[in-house]
Amino acid sequence: MDFSLLKPLLKESKTKIVFLIIDGIGGLPRKKDNKTELEAAFKPHLDSLASEGICGLQIPVKIGITPGSGPGHLALFGYDPILFQVGRGVLAAHGLNFNLHSDDVAARGNFCTIDANDIITDRRAGRIPTEKNNQLCRILQENIRIPNVEIFVKTEKEHRFLLVLRGKNLSSHIQDTDPQEIGKRPLEPTALHADADNTARVIQQFIYQTKMILKDQHPANMVLLRGFSVKPTWPTMQECYGLRSAAIAAYPMYRGLAKLLGMHALDTGETISEEIMTLEQYWNDFDFFYIHIKKTDSRGEDGNFEEKKKVIEEVDQFIPRIRALNPDVIVVSGDHSTPSEMAAHSWHPVPVLLWSKHCRPDIVVQFGERACITGSLGPRFPAVEIMTLALANAKRLEKFGA
Amino acid sequence: MDFSLLKPLLKESKTKIVFLIIDGIGGLPRKKDNKTELEAAFKPHLDSLASEGICGLQIPVKIGITPGSGPGHLALFGYDPILFQVGRGVLAAHGLNFNLHSDDVAARGNFCTIDANDIITDRRAGRIPTEKNNQLCRILQENIRIPNVEIFVKTEKEHRFLLVLRGKNLSSHIQDTDPQEIGKRPLEPTALHADADNTARVIQQFIYQTKMILKDQHPANMVLLRGFSVKPTWPTMQECYGLRSAAIAAYPMYRGLAKLLGMHALDTGETISEEIMTLEQYWNDFDFFYIHIKKTDSRGEDGNFEEKKKVIEEVDQFIPRIRALNPDVIVVSGDHSTPSEMAAHSWHPVPVLLWSKHCRPDIVVQFGERACITGSLGPRFPAVEIMTLALANAKRLEKFGA
Repeated sequence: MDFSLLKPLLKESKTKIVFLIIDGIGGLPRKKDNKTELEAAFKPHLDSLASEGICGLQIPVKIGITPGSGPGHLALFGYDPILFQVGRGVLAAHGLNFNLHSDDVAARGNFCTIDANDIITDRRAGRIPTEKNNQLCRILQENIRIPNVEIFVKTEKEHRFLLVLRGKNLSSHIQDTDPQEIGKRPLEPTALHADADNTARVIQQFIYQTKMILKDQHPANMVLLRGFSVKPTWPTMQECYGLRSAAIAAYPMYRGLAKLLGMHALDTGETISEEIMTLEQYWNDFDFFYIHIKKTDSRGEDGNFEEKKKVIEEVDQFIPRIRALNPDVIVVSGDHSTPSEMAAHSWHPVPVLLWSKHCRPDIVVQFGERACITGSLGPRFPAVEIMTLALANAKRLEKFGA
Repeated sequence: MDFSLLKPLLKESKTKIVFLIIDGIGGLPRKKDNKTELEAAFKPHLDSLASEGICGLQIPVKIGITPGSGPGHLALFGYDPILFQVGRGVLAAHGLNFNLHSDDVAARGNFCTIDANDIITDRRAGRIPTEKNNQLCRILQENIRIPNVEIFVKTEKEHRFLLVLRGKNLSSHIQDTDPQEIGKRPLEPTALHADADNTARVIQQFIYQTKMILKDQHPANMVLLRGFSVKPTWPTMQECYGLRSAAIAAYPMYRGLAKLLGMHALDTGETISEEIMTLEQYWNDFDFFYIHIKKTDSRGEDGNFEEKKKVIEEVDQFIPRIRALNPDVIVVSGDHSTPSEMAAHSWHPVPVLLWSKHCRPDIVVQFGERACITGSLGPRFPAVEIMTLALANAKRLEKFGA
């Protein structure tokens, strides 16, 4: 979205907007009945929203481009994901509430398994328990020493951790050491620009010492690093849209992303029920709520059609609770499609619905991939435009021009 | 397409993409049964592709803009036709395998007929036989002398020829001498920028000498020149998409265009059958095949509804041969519409279908102008995005962002 167009049009209002983001919601039809997960799900309340509201299919980044979770979410919040790019390291830091300084370099780490020839046999070290991760991070934190550089090693979840380097003249222009494939060796830390030569040497030392320390910790006997990045300075949702914004997301990465946009990441639980309780609890304190549902994506990535469908059905049961709060605008969509048939993120357009008292209902009466094609948002709605439409429906925008 | 977005996402694959380009495929409904050429044609195999794949109508350049063949094709290959402009002269040179030097200026010539008052009475000199064209080009080549400039006059086909000027300080900023209408005189060669003053004088000499030489050669007693241009340096399909690409096109202009994008222009015959045999013969050697069907456009330009429909029916019979090769992605579209009712290229959106194992089928079951409106590509799909979607469906793109 072009923020400069919106800025002079913003007006104060007490209206409330809810973005219910069902991660990886879009799918592909299964053989049995030619239905997608969303089409097969029993979800009377989502269908009601669709039939009272307007529908379509949105494109998060560009036609044919498979979005990562970061770009997919940024687009929904009106931030062009091609202009606003952020590394995994920064996302992880934000998710962990780590107070990243402006000169810090952050990276996302995986504990992994290597064999006697340094070949990666498992990029996730068998998804070690978070408790084990905690213990390993403590050992690394206590034992690694690199001159003139302060090191922070923080547990994220399972095999995932955060690495932060703090010191003078550090750069994030470092190639991932994660080759993204098993059967290969971890890549050498390499500077992508001359300004990162020193940083590459620091990371070589980190990797070397880590490998020594972890050598008897099979399956977590090595680490892979990726997404070296520094904290970006982006305009906040408050600045762009005049919205006091809150994120209700169980997973650190999504909380981290929300915080980059100045959202308050509210404490919440792991279940959808707990997320909705958080929404109810903070309802009076914010104008905009982003609720993140993770498990649709997880079950899609597992290739489990039936379970993904069930998560959608579970979400559906909470729609009346959201509507009971009397929001002015509800948007339901995903950050990308995750067809269980592909067991991965995909480029397929993402179903989207917008409900408000002021929308002009179209002919769609079911929230599904094919039903949405004929919705008034069309089959290729640019995701970055959804925020403007939500603000309009929330009566938060003045007329443009006389 | 923004090549810089794609570049870091490209991944190696053995998948194969076929673009079947049915020139001028889009049409307008005839009175009799209110059907377009495509709607009236019996084409069960194209309809099967449409029903298994995704459909829409594409816009080659901009809404309301009637594309020439060059822009229409460039868009299909993902090259924004507004950024990538090439003159007819360069296209003709490439089609004839003429080795254009980087400083050469090329133009497309027509032999034409003028009367005693220099008024054009036939812009194509009654479509003289190619043999006659050959003879005239030889005479011009042997007799024209211009100081410090080397001249090449090469037969293309029927009334069409290629003119190339080679020398120092030549410019392509020259206005066409073809007024594109009968009843007018040929236009004077005129510089469009000051850098072309010298070149304009060279072309004035060329025209003057040509007119003298041809004066007894009625109906081919004059020439018209257009599309003055120099060889562009564009990124190739290999560089942009990592695709080893081949063009199967009978007509020189289309081979020429394909070569500008680094495609291999395969030797083939004049018939669709010969083109499909060429596809089969080279199937293992390339990742991307562009097959060009010319006669739909020719019959459309002739204003012959029935014959254009028959060409579509003929193409349809070869679809099983293409499918038998087991391609990963098939795209069927045209470079523009050529309604036989108008007997000319037109601005009408062009039917497009994409078939792959990984697309999300929509509700369209017939490949026709009106059926495609409700396809998931929508009624105004930008042609330049088709390549990205084809790459995605061929699983040749990594995820964007974390």
